[in-house]
Amino acid sequence: MKIINGGVCAAKGFKANGIHCGIRKNHSKKDLALIVSDVPATAAAVYTQNLVKGAPLTVTKEHISDGIAQAVICNSGNANTCNANGIEIAEAMSALVERYTGVAAKNVVVASTGVIGQPLNLKPIENGMAELAAGLSADNGAAAAQAIMTTDTTAKEVAVEFTVSGKTCRMGGIAKGSGMIHPNMATMLVFITTDAAISREMLQKALSQDITNTFNMLSIDGDTSTNDMVTVLANGLAGNPEITAEGEDFNSFMQALNTITVQLCRMIAGDGEGATKLLECIATGADKEETAKIAAKSVICSSLLKAAMFGADANWGRVLCAIGYSGADVDVAKIGVSFRSAKGTVEVCRNGAGVPFSEEEAKEILLQNEIEILISLGDGPFGAHAWGCDLTYDYVKINGDYRT
Amino acid sequence: MKIINGGVCAAKGFKANGIHCGIRKNHSKKDLALIVSDVPATAAAVYTQNLVKGAPLTVTKEHISDGIAQAVICNSGNANTCNANGIEIAEAMSALVERYTGVAAKNVVVASTGVIGQPLNLKPIENGMAELAAGLSADNGAAAAQAIMTTDTTAKEVAVEFTVSGKTCRMGGIAKGSGMIHPNMATMLVFITTDAAISREMLQKALSQDITNTFNMLSIDGDTSTNDMVTVLANGLAGNPEITAEGEDFNSFMQALNTITVQLCRMIAGDGEGATKLLECIATGADKEETAKIAAKSVICSSLLKAAMFGADANWGRVLCAIGYSGADVDVAKIGVSFRSAKGTVEVCRNGAGVPFSEEEAKEILLQNEIEILISLGDGPFGAHAWGCDLTYDYVKINGDYRT
Repeated sequence: MKIINGGVCAAKGFKANGIHCGIRKNHSKKDLALIVSDVPATAAAVYTQNLVKGAPLTVTKEHISDGIAQAVICNSGNANTCNANGIEIAEAMSALVERYTGVAAKNVVVASTGVIGQPLNLKPIENGMAELAAGLSADNGAAAAQAIMTTDTTAKEVAVEFTVSGKTCRMGGIAKGSGMIHPNMATMLVFITTDAAISREMLQKALSQDITNTFNMLSIDGDTSTNDMVTVLANGLAGNPEITAEGEDFNSFMQALNTITVQLCRMIAGDGEGATKLLECIATGADKEETAKIAAKSVICSSLLKAAMFGADANWGRVLCAIGYSGADVDVAKIGVSFRSAKGTVEVCRNGAGVPFSEEEAKEILLQNEIEILISLGDGPFGAHAWGCDLTYDYVKINGDYRT
Repeated sequence: MKIINGGVCAAKGFKANGIHCGIRKNHSKKDLALIVSDVPATAAAVYTQNLVKGAPLTVTKEHISDGIAQAVICNSGNANTCNANGIEIAEAMSALVERYTGVAAKNVVVASTGVIGQPLNLKPIENGMAELAAGLSADNGAAAAQAIMTTDTTAKEVAVEFTVSGKTCRMGGIAKGSGMIHPNMATMLVFITTDAAISREMLQKALSQDITNTFNMLSIDGDTSTNDMVTVLANGLAGNPEITAEGEDFNSFMQALNTITVQLCRMIAGDGEGATKLLECIATGADKEETAKIAAKSVICSSLLKAAMFGADANWGRVLCAIGYSGADVDVAKIGVSFRSAKGTVEVCRNGAGVPFSEEEAKEILLQNEIEILISLGDGPFGAHAWGCDLTYDYVKINGDYRT
């Protein structure tokens, strides 16, 4: 498997585009994305567990209830959530896709991201559709990645090439972060495309399994969004024998999917609102996988630790504290903590108590922009990874007046 | 019942003092507090549920296992947690109290607050004990309140006078906040004293019941401390017939206790690290009390909403979002949201969707320093209160480099 360019258009038969249509006031920010497959694709999705759900999710769920989708339309600048006419607008967006691309409205995945509770005006979307559809191209994946951004500072796309039964397949994805990120059995907006042939059941299985170790182990700020969604469209154009059961081919697919999702997790965490650092907590030595996951996620969710990481302060007591209140069944007397980055590794706690360390060395390690927090929980065989970011002045600034 | 002065010394037979002994480098900050009852008192306590527990809690739990305590010693500047010799140091602190006041070491409540994982030096405490004990006085409750402060900007004390079977009783308390506050079946450091006579069982019952609606409904930053503890000492010197069962007298006692704890909650939340505003979420209309509590607490825990409140931004979508992911069993289509302060009330959401409102009016309301977030969940009879604060630049600043 190798990392390749092309993002959501890396796989055969996918075209995309992204434009500024006018939902956002800032003309330099794209706000409408479209992804279309040449042929109908097998589709799988996972959604937010928030009881407050965006209207686009309801419509998408209905549209892919038959396991088929052929296009994705997504606007930024407005979440189309908690609006009286939300469903109507999301259906109208699907109808516009049909009118301008020929893809049946019932095969359209609809998504919206942005502020909650303000009616979404269809007019700019209507006005922009001709331009959006005309620009659909296998070279425009990056434009789609840009058009789904909200407070993200960088577009997020990744693609891989892999092999299924000797056939070369490709898979790519785009994502938007970067606040209200604390997925719960679902995730933020992620659209993944592949030309691999895979059955509807196995595609959903692959996605549902994968997210438990990827997007569900990611947190920017503890707030689970109303509009979280990941979809995968698999159009089968690679020509591999369809994956219909577990086995070597399914494993190859899972590995490709995991490469995409881990990379997107890292991109989302590293570009968390206001973030200056990507934090990765790596738990080892747990008796159960669940224990490792609970502990690792609690560490990267701690506001106190996140602020300490911003300040490059090796305040490991906050790591222990976060493990202690996580609910994970751990023996505190066995916990070890180290911090690692490109500048080296410093051990700060062993067997639940501090060990002497050089504050200067720790500071140098923590001043890097990718920090690993290594927690060993004992002698067990299980581990977990979780991703997050530091808590900064800019997080407060961005969210102190998001709507203006 | 009326609010009176005197804090932890308002009740008969309690003396206190607080000094700077040298645990903290800043000479103007007191760091050692002592509270002593003239006679042994009935004692009750609740403790943090964090698996990582401060050594002082272990020692205190042992000391009051017989339901009796007569003194409280508490230092700030160091939590005496995750240290190899923590228990030894906490026992030594109790022994110092015995040496200087005559109160048996086994009747001493010991507490420490500050940084985790750095050995606590007994020397400054030893050196300060003579001065600390010599200054014990019924007029020095405020000094004790000051000496337990960490990043608190104001000392927190309150007292009330109430009546039990015709006898005048008094109760007072002190507390420290102000970060790592997200009590879980326990709370931060709070010491309450009363001269009411009450049995050990009823005292523990009163405390355990009360905190479920007070300290457990408080959050500054989502981090449950390792050193949380509330203790109540009741020395019986008011001369009321001992409260040994539920009934009118117990209700009077509960009411006094609740007045103390709600005031301390408000003080702690309003003085949260970096906070500029006290937030109170008032839930009504729930079918079950638990539903109201879960929803209200989720709202005041949301980083996004807390940042919006800092910016005086009526971004009610974040309130709905936080209710939606809270796990509370609510019907989103019935949720209403209003913001209220000394400047008035503004309704922003009804039946799960936005209602038109004046942004100017909302801004004026939200610029106040005490904000009520009113959430109505339906037609049920249950409600709840939760307390928190806004998320500000200063929270990040304070916690970006806490140890230096």
